[in-house]
Amino acid sequence: MSPAAAEAGFQLYPQLAADTAPVTDLALCRVLLMNDRRFPWLILVPRRAGKRDLDDLAAADQAQATIEASQAARALKALVSTHKMNVAALGNMVPQLHIHVIARQTTDAAWPKPVWGVGSAEPYAAAERDDWIQRVRRELQRSATS
Amino acid sequence: MSPAAAEAGFQLYPQLAADTAPVTDLALCRVLLMNDRRFPWLILVPRRAGKRDLDDLAAADQAQATIEASQAARALKALVSTHKMNVAALGNMVPQLHIHVIARQTTDAAWPKPVWGVGSAEPYAAAERDDWIQRVRRELQRSATS
Repeated sequence: MSPAAAEAGFQLYPQLAADTAPVTDLALCRVLLMNDRRFPWLILVPRRAGKRDLDDLAAADQAQATIEASQAARALKALVSTHKMNVAALGNMVPQLHIHVIARQTTDAAWPKPVWGVGSAEPYAAAERDDWIQRVRRELQRSATS
Repeated sequence: MSPAAAEAGFQLYPQLAADTAPVTDLALCRVLLMNDRRFPWLILVPRRAGKRDLDDLAAADQAQATIEASQAARALKALVSTHKMNVAALGNMVPQLHIHVIARQTTDAAWPKPVWGVGSAEPYAAAERDDWIQRVRRELQRSATS
């Protein structure tokens, strides 16, 4: 199947679009920056229509999603000091399959709890957000070519 | 590297051992049943010493961990009605890399929130736990041979 055919019908779920800013497209996933400056937090969305759970993806896409989640984790590790990476496909609120990749620090606003539902998101200022997007994009390109 | 060499030095972290009952060993991961009857909840632990984050695993092990997490998800889906599978490597409390696979229902004790830190675990009765272990083991074998 051609990449275009594989992506047919894919549309980013409105809630994900509202909560994030686009960073880049990897081979499978759209990479988004969560608009919450409390946490270095990327969201990866496989560009496949109608997928809900990780095991709904074809086996090759599952493997690719894992590779890209690791790429995203390494990009964040290169940018901030990190105590633990949280990698999670939950999707209780948003039915479209998406993978959280969150760099956790022992000093962050939710530690040691999971970040979901803790306090309120603190949106980035526009310049700060754009700077993050540029830096994440650069790190993802670096890891893709290394 | 032989399987035995790859597993050298692996020991289940005491907290994980205390909170769970062993189900079976897949090619890479030890499968554990979380001792909390509120949620159909498996934990997969790659038998590799000293790993903390998913991206610490070798690429082949990352792919295998994903395959086995999907196997575990399908086993739970075969056993209970499921609204959403939560698949997550968090590990803020327990430093050893482990992957949660949790069958969520819209009627469960935490929905739509993540399960971690919600209320207190309700341990299984011994017979009920053993029955779960048998049924999960059977489903995992079925999916491995199909």
